[in-house]
Amino acid sequence: MDRLMMISSDCHAGAPWYIYRKYLDPQYREEYDRWSNALLKSVLDEESMKKQMPFQLETMSAERQKQYLTAMEESMGHLGNWDPTVRARELDREGIAGEVVFCDGSQKNYPPFGVGFVLREFRQKLSYELRLAGCRAHNRWLAEFVQSNPGRHAGVALVTMDEPEDTAREIAWARENGLFGGIMLPALQLTHDGYESFWHHPRYEPVWAACQDYGMPMTTHASAAGPDYGGPRNCASLENGFVTFRPFWFLLWSGVFERYPGLKFCPTESSGMAPLWFNGYFDGYLSKQRRPDQVKDAISMKPSEYWHRQCFIGASAHSSRMEIDFREHIGVRNIMWGSDYPHPEGTWPVSGERTRELFEGVPEDEVRLMIGENCASVYGFDLPAMREIASRIGPKVSDIIGPVQNAAA
Amino acid sequence: MDRLMMISSDCHAGAPWYIYRKYLDPQYREEYDRWSNALLKSVLDEESMKKQMPFQLETMSAERQKQYLTAMEESMGHLGNWDPTVRARELDREGIAGEVVFCDGSQKNYPPFGVGFVLREFRQKLSYELRLAGCRAHNRWLAEFVQSNPGRHAGVALVTMDEPEDTAREIAWARENGLFGGIMLPALQLTHDGYESFWHHPRYEPVWAACQDYGMPMTTHASAAGPDYGGPRNCASLENGFVTFRPFWFLLWSGVFERYPGLKFCPTESSGMAPLWFNGYFDGYLSKQRRPDQVKDAISMKPSEYWHRQCFIGASAHSSRMEIDFREHIGVRNIMWGSDYPHPEGTWPVSGERTRELFEGVPEDEVRLMIGENCASVYGFDLPAMREIASRIGPKVSDIIGPVQNAAA
Repeated sequence: MDRLMMISSDCHAGAPWYIYRKYLDPQYREEYDRWSNALLKSVLDEESMKKQMPFQLETMSAERQKQYLTAMEESMGHLGNWDPTVRARELDREGIAGEVVFCDGSQKNYPPFGVGFVLREFRQKLSYELRLAGCRAHNRWLAEFVQSNPGRHAGVALVTMDEPEDTAREIAWARENGLFGGIMLPALQLTHDGYESFWHHPRYEPVWAACQDYGMPMTTHASAAGPDYGGPRNCASLENGFVTFRPFWFLLWSGVFERYPGLKFCPTESSGMAPLWFNGYFDGYLSKQRRPDQVKDAISMKPSEYWHRQCFIGASAHSSRMEIDFREHIGVRNIMWGSDYPHPEGTWPVSGERTRELFEGVPEDEVRLMIGENCASVYGFDLPAMREIASRIGPKVSDIIGPVQNAAA
Repeated sequence: MDRLMMISSDCHAGAPWYIYRKYLDPQYREEYDRWSNALLKSVLDEESMKKQMPFQLETMSAERQKQYLTAMEESMGHLGNWDPTVRARELDREGIAGEVVFCDGSQKNYPPFGVGFVLREFRQKLSYELRLAGCRAHNRWLAEFVQSNPGRHAGVALVTMDEPEDTAREIAWARENGLFGGIMLPALQLTHDGYESFWHHPRYEPVWAACQDYGMPMTTHASAAGPDYGGPRNCASLENGFVTFRPFWFLLWSGVFERYPGLKFCPTESSGMAPLWFNGYFDGYLSKQRRPDQVKDAISMKPSEYWHRQCFIGASAHSSRMEIDFREHIGVRNIMWGSDYPHPEGTWPVSGERTRELFEGVPEDEVRLMIGENCASVYGFDLPAMREIASRIGPKVSDIIGPVQNAAA
């Protein structure tokens, strides 16, 4: 095949509040109306909302703003955020065969009660019941949404982690209803004694077991983790680079990857360079003539071996050429390209051009892994179906790897 | 000079409780006696205390335990933890000209009230007054201790961060009393509203200004940061690799490095690989056609440029050959070797052998920077004095860089 199978490991979809409302159990709708009104009232005060722009766009260069706004006006392509017909058209146009679909918030279309990504103002005192209702509403909506283009969208289910046995049942429901994108570990999990949870507690065992049993990857995503920082927003958003990876070492040292070798962990929209740091550090820690008691029974391999076996970066829009240059250390099989559609900080509507910046001159077999095959394998996409789509719409190999590679061949 | 000037960026000193008691303001001694008794009672229950071993030693290999215990028994060299005569002898024997001296806890000789490193059981409800008293007692003791071998020990002062104007005065006191090792950011700083502080709050401005004005580096150190994790201890200790670096980005994005170009930040006993991760990530973040409002006025250079100008890793015992191999990316001028004396996870009493593993075959001029010159420059050691000591006791270049290098020359 002279075309590449592109699968994005990081895309988003979310419905406006009046659509989500229908998917919410009726007893929560009154509460949801109050919540939605407060949210809308709050965001309508903002300059960004007056301009009807996604808030991230404000931080972009003038060139990028123009590029994005033009696409919004000419093709209305951002409406694919909740319109599956528009979405399929945009995927086709960008040459993307399949995608992993996280929840959203960029058009103020947060899932009910602000579950999913961090929505500080509204999450503080939400009861377990309301958060669970919000997750279920999003999952029901998403399960219908992904059925519009069967097999092409790996929807990521939202879960709470308060009652791990409940969570295990939600995971089963999601898998049985076509959400094969796994689950997203939720923002700021508070443990029963008031501290943040760092996922090494044995109470979460039913969740890890369910994820393995149902073949559901466990993801984290930028903006969906982290404590309340106070101070400027940029400090919070820039900690994404590490809070998304943070579960890795708690799962590692508590032996979760050892006990669940089929469990997959996908930190998404973060820095692909992180494994260079912690793999070297952790391997070195254990090799330096020491093996703490608590660790020695929990893991039998080197930390980096668990990384390479079970962890996969949803590299997304923050991926950089530097990451690709260091791919041997990060793991060529552990990097998954992503477009972050429809977010302004992603590559839509110019994914082809931006992808070429990343992969020009890289050997074709490695590009194929990073640009689609790894993601297909991790999330369990239907390979023949994806290849069939790619053979029609995928970018030509030479358009991504470039003439330099062709000249050398 | 055919010898190397070795300066350790990470060593420790701490006195037994009955010595610290004398340095505590009298009005706190009664409270301190209660605290000490509780601490001793608690640790005496532990197997490690029965064996009179530092607790870290339990996690070491049998070979390392034997090596360390033999040195303890034969030379009593660990007593240099608070005996300056023994300490100078051990530095000489190891070929180390100078050292940065952090507080300790390995022999249960925590500074009064457990300030300094994390001492979970005892820190929970300590008043500001008691913590300040504990810091001052340690600083007074350390100021006397370092005067025993003038210029050789860069003592690191302990501070509280509750009242930044007070802290600025403590910084002045420390500098004027010979503690030129700077300050250590304390464990788990709670802000007034109950959250951890991440150092981007403007209220800390007087501290950054004082550090710059008095030429006092600002350090973090493994085990002296991080929230309460619950669960197994190893999860906490293994987060050292990132909590020690965490202040970097809060200081960066809030413009502290921009406003205080003379301020130096030294994350210590952590992973030297971390800058590979965040420098690439942060530079990429800003270059991807975006420049968040909150950032654009706060910084004028690339994030990695602040790193290279103002941040220096106290590489210590966790440094690995991998870090040395990646030194070009981390910064040859940003790596400072360390021995972690007298800790079992460090290199004492075999620093020569362990240092050779790190630097064999590396060009001499780069080794000179990483093994001593960088540290001398960052902490402001008296260079002629250090060189004079090194000319007598420093290891021969060929003993550290090895025969491979000689053969090639």
